[in-house]
Amino acid sequence: MNAIFLSEDSLLDNKWLIAPTRKEWLIQAISNPIELLVDHAHCERKAAGFAMQLMFRYLSEPGLSEVLSPLIREELEHYERVVRLLKRRGRTLFPLAAPPYGAALAKIVRKSEPRRMLDSFLVAGLIEARSHERMSLLSKHSPEKDLRNLYSDLLASEEKHASIYWKLAKDRYELEIVRARLKTLSENESEILSKLHPYPRMHS
Amino acid sequence: MNAIFLSEDSLLDNKWLIAPTRKEWLIQAISNPIELLVDHAHCERKAAGFAMQLMFRYLSEPGLSEVLSPLIREELEHYERVVRLLKRRGRTLFPLAAPPYGAALAKIVRKSEPRRMLDSFLVAGLIEARSHERMSLLSKHSPEKDLRNLYSDLLASEEKHASIYWKLAKDRYELEIVRARLKTLSENESEILSKLHPYPRMHS
Repeated sequence: MNAIFLSEDSLLDNKWLIAPTRKEWLIQAISNPIELLVDHAHCERKAAGFAMQLMFRYLSEPGLSEVLSPLIREELEHYERVVRLLKRRGRTLFPLAAPPYGAALAKIVRKSEPRRMLDSFLVAGLIEARSHERMSLLSKHSPEKDLRNLYSDLLASEEKHASIYWKLAKDRYELEIVRARLKTLSENESEILSKLHPYPRMHS
Repeated sequence: MNAIFLSEDSLLDNKWLIAPTRKEWLIQAISNPIELLVDHAHCERKAAGFAMQLMFRYLSEPGLSEVLSPLIREELEHYERVVRLLKRRGRTLFPLAAPPYGAALAKIVRKSEPRRMLDSFLVAGLIEARSHERMSLLSKHSPEKDLRNLYSDLLASEEKHASIYWKLAKDRYELEIVRARLKTLSENESEILSKLHPYPRMHS
């Protein structure tokens, strides 16, 4: 199965991710399509919730809510789409224990402004970038066609969302500072994913 | 100006509101169109935030997020529309102290389930119904055409959102219980608005 994975090369033009997703994750993911779908729905919902938190926290930040509000709507559209797909398969959403990924990333967001805002944009962008990379794998290797189609349709948005967070960061902070901080956060992100979580999740 | 107000009669087919909005409010509102617009943007944003809170709190409630997620998207579309209108007038969003309305309603939501969920639906529906009534007044009496158009366009959604919350309540609780509780909450709501708040707000 080695040939089917993103190689290190394919990440060279990707400013976000330092380490590519490993084979074990894809095997775990495509072996548990329903649990992954449910987790995916939760991810879309949480991405919408996180963007809404940012929108509320930085209410007076010019140009922010104009960008985040449509992004939230898009995350919710995806959420609804995944829930519909589950329904067609006779399933409904159920609570799922989250993997450590989100909480571990939240922990490295610095607490004082203006660093907190920068870190929030970059962490949000990192999560979108990782989702994009993994959905790209799922769009190619999911055993069922409707799942391949789903992930393939959602891919472009994940990439767009990562770019939105990148632009939010670089329009407000010096490029060198943004790059340096992203490097640190990316290293952390890859480190967090270096041990596979026992349960199949989008970010296990 | 008396003739231009909703009469008590026009509320008879309205299950939500006990007392109609009084003349003083409309005078205050149409005399301060920009402040009201800014407050309106905040109301749309908060309505989206409240619905998202409900969606997150009752994750396992069947059929709930399927209804709330599109509602949130619509509230955000309205938010964006109001922000665009402000921008065309050279204004941006700014923080505004909220009137006591929302906090006073939140206080009468009972804390234990399943009452909390019922009260949450009914309070959300009441706020939508009051917004609908007031936007209806603004769609007729705002001095500027683009404001009349805005409020007129948004009216239908406010009414639809109130109906959505009504249906969420009556599909899950006995009708007599829903009606009795709504009566109490409606009395509270009208009481809260019986004294005009000194600052122009959608719910002053």
